[in-house]
Amino acid sequence: MVMILKVLCLFFSFFLFLCSEYCIVEVHGRILSITSKPDPDDASATARWLVSLNSWGVLNTISNDLGGAPFGNVVSFSDGLPNEGIGIPYFYLTTLDPTARNALQDERASLTVGEYALGTCGQKDPENPTCSKITLTGKLKMLDEKSSNEGKFARNALFSKHPEMKGWPKGHNFQVFKLEIEDIFLIDWYGGPKPLTVEQYLQQKM
Amino acid sequence: MVMILKVLCLFFSFFLFLCSEYCIVEVHGRILSITSKPDPDDASATARWLVSLNSWGVLNTISNDLGGAPFGNVVSFSDGLPNEGIGIPYFYLTTLDPTARNALQDERASLTVGEYALGTCGQKDPENPTCSKITLTGKLKMLDEKSSNEGKFARNALFSKHPEMKGWPKGHNFQVFKLEIEDIFLIDWYGGPKPLTVEQYLQQKM
Repeated sequence: MVMILKVLCLFFSFFLFLCSEYCIVEVHGRILSITSKPDPDDASATARWLVSLNSWGVLNTISNDLGGAPFGNVVSFSDGLPNEGIGIPYFYLTTLDPTARNALQDERASLTVGEYALGTCGQKDPENPTCSKITLTGKLKMLDEKSSNEGKFARNALFSKHPEMKGWPKGHNFQVFKLEIEDIFLIDWYGGPKPLTVEQYLQQKM
Repeated sequence: MVMILKVLCLFFSFFLFLCSEYCIVEVHGRILSITSKPDPDDASATARWLVSLNSWGVLNTISNDLGGAPFGNVVSFSDGLPNEGIGIPYFYLTTLDPTARNALQDERASLTVGEYALGTCGQKDPENPTCSKITLTGKLKMLDEKSSNEGKFARNALFSKHPEMKGWPKGHNFQVFKLEIEDIFLIDWYGGPKPLTVEQYLQQKM
């Protein structure tokens, strides 16, 4: 019985592969229509593609509770309405969780996302350099989501991609945060990180 | 044409869902047979399940080049031969990459992995606490893969789950590293992190 199911899975995986060739990708039960992966030579387009298409990543802060260790945490994020990303990642965090508490003590942070999570790396190993990955390093700052325009934008960006957030407990006091990007580390091919300035990244048209 | 493919994708996704109900999950083209997800009340079993089934995560180090910022990087890892994980994550890193260079200057590190990457969270948001996630914090240390028994074990653990590594360029001088775990942060349900000691985690039978 299990063997038959394995064969069926392989068969259907092949069809999903065909689907992805037509710019549709199945990500854990959600069907996303995506623009094609940019050419690896186009660093800014690849970087923005990675950030706009991923809905989650690992947000890293400095943990005073753990002797100043770098502490990564799985979080959801959004850089804008679907297909209208601006490249700046926004988060919905509560100080019940260490990441927000860490950031309020020390703003230094990074967000790491990988192409592997999108399901577009085929049979490549997750650490294969042609399976692209990006780390945005900067400062993690709380926004005023009611009085600032950016706060309102961030809230809409988050709730449009993560509708579940609207129903998260009011008593947990979730707040909108942004990562102010200061450095970009992008690997999308052999030969080491691609040179990419924050300005080039933010100015990239999508 | 695209519409037809979308319908086909939905159809096949449904079959993949059926497959996963029978403890087989399709992870980006690889078929893994998995044990069922442990009960969330069983913190040590859930933690070991997360670490043994994930093949990649985000490894965080302190970046002196970036003003001491926490720097996350997508990496492959392994905690043992398939279905024989021991809970300690091993990595295959080169000092051409900042993560290994950072660790040789400052061993403080963490590895973060999430259930979302396994495709077993269904329609839950990646930040939903019932979609489990773990961060192992400790010291990232280079092993001697030729003369130490642990180094040889780590090499076999890595190459069995990541066969592509065997062919990575000799000139890049990849080395085996381990994370010596000192603290465990596990979220697998509502109500905050689960209390879990390193001893409980390592002693868990799989």
